Amino acid sequence: MSGLKTAPPGFVSFVGAGPGAADLITLRGAQRLACADVVLADALADPALRELAPQARWVEVGKRGFRAGATPQAQIDALLVASAQRHGHVVRLKGGDPSVFGRLEEEIEALQAAGIAFEVVPGVTAALAAAAATQRPLTRRGRGRSVTLATAMAQDGAVEAERPRAATEVFYMAGRQLAGLSRRLRSAGWLGQTPCSVVSNAGAADVLCSEHPLHDLASASVLHAGRPLVVTVGVGATAVGGVLPPKIAVFEPLAATPT
Amino acid sequence: MSGLKTAPPGFVSFVGAGPGAADLITLRGAQRLACADVVLADALADPALRELAPQARWVEVGKRGFRAGATPQAQIDALLVASAQRHGHVVRLKGGDPSVFGRLEEEIEALQAAGIAFEVVPGVTAALAAAAATQRPLTRRGRGRSVTLATAMAQDGAVEAERPRAATEVFYMAGRQLAGLSRRLRSAGWLGQTPCSVVSNAGAADVLCSEHPLHDLASASVLHAGRPLVVTVGVGATAVGGVLPPKIAVFEPLAATPT
Repeated sequence: MSGLKTAPPGFVSFVGAGPGAADLITLRGAQRLACADVVLADALADPALRELAPQARWVEVGKRGFRAGATPQAQIDALLVASAQRHGHVVRLKGGDPSVFGRLEEEIEALQAAGIAFEVVPGVTAALAAAAATQRPLTRRGRGRSVTLATAMAQDGAVEAERPRAATEVFYMAGRQLAGLSRRLRSAGWLGQTPCSVVSNAGAADVLCSEHPLHDLASASVLHAGRPLVVTVGVGATAVGGVLPPKIAVFEPLAATPT
Repeated sequence: MSGLKTAPPGFVSFVGAGPGAADLITLRGAQRLACADVVLADALADPALRELAPQARWVEVGKRGFRAGATPQAQIDALLVASAQRHGHVVRLKGGDPSVFGRLEEEIEALQAAGIAFEVVPGVTAALAAAAATQRPLTRRGRGRSVTLATAMAQDGAVEAERPRAATEVFYMAGRQLAGLSRRLRSAGWLGQTPCSVVSNAGAADVLCSEHPLHDLASASVLHAGRPLVVTVGVGATAVGGVLPPKIAVFEPLAATPT
């Protein structure tokens, strides 16, 4: 971009890294990395992304969910402002897309308060990568004309879910909440047999996909343990033409007990 | 990808081109273009994308909305199968992301029926590019923890809208439906003062953004005439740190006093 400032107080490019494979960043994102002085990166970003900015100083500021030991958001905000004031061009590299569950609002507010200019370069959000990996479109003709992206986890750790909002819902940050998410969705009106697709490390070579009826969603916990995942619920979780792509594990309990 | 078949019946890569600027395609998408024999491209794709596959035969199969003269979906399906049977590697280049309003289901079914293998490479969908262009995150802490992607237009040309489904909704293919969309959303319970952000040619150098209260959404028609656009409604349409009218600040999706 020709308008990037190169003298302090610098310029920040928020860049979506995509869901977990270096080659799912956009060309524009890669170009921003190539001219960065400093990169502040989420822990989720593929280490291979470093090859796109060997000249830059890399600082890992990862924060997944609300685990103890994660860098608090206020520290990330302060580091972002300080880096921009000290250096020319800062790339703030975020997993997925910055505008979807990326805490972008807080970091924009910090830059605004400090008078630092910025841009946002979009990226592939995890729901799209999961749909691509399972070859299951999020929207379908006639019966699936909307998709909701939501998070399973509230700040206090409670599982959030409301009545079905769309033909397909995709839940982020649900890894340690699968049993609770299943309960909440069923009590909100989703049928126990509603198809669910669970995808971890979407977009990466070691992607794992499994499918479950909603009432048995908790059984995905072991397979996907410790891996970032999204849960797709509803029409968009069903296989096109009933054909399963390779690598899909089908979990069906022996005695299905629909709710 | 090492497993691409190079002999008939070929292999199809569905590739998301991103929202309308060549540099918003992913590195993986660009790599697929670089080794394509044939590219079947939506009319929406940036012509500069051709530079990523100068070796390939390009066929434009564009279809925007349901305009007369557009290539019917069945013809696209047949062309896709025939191209894959005749050539080694076909890239089916779709605007935005293939899994979101991309008619991917129909084309997968056609390939399955013909026994042709395929993959899906995700892309940046227009809602994300619009949020990046306006620097307005689709999700916000506390008050905006979900976003629904929907389409304003049904196959019969009627405007589809239901009760508010999420804190933020993004409507695709709403260009010629703005007045109808505004009416339907208000009759479904959205307040007339609900903030709306309209972005056309998101991601491109000639992007245009405007904001409107929901009751005045139709006034965006002239500014964005003839340009592909998305309409963001609700919390995600508000400026970060901006001064908001009181009614917008207390916006509640289900508080139903339609204007």
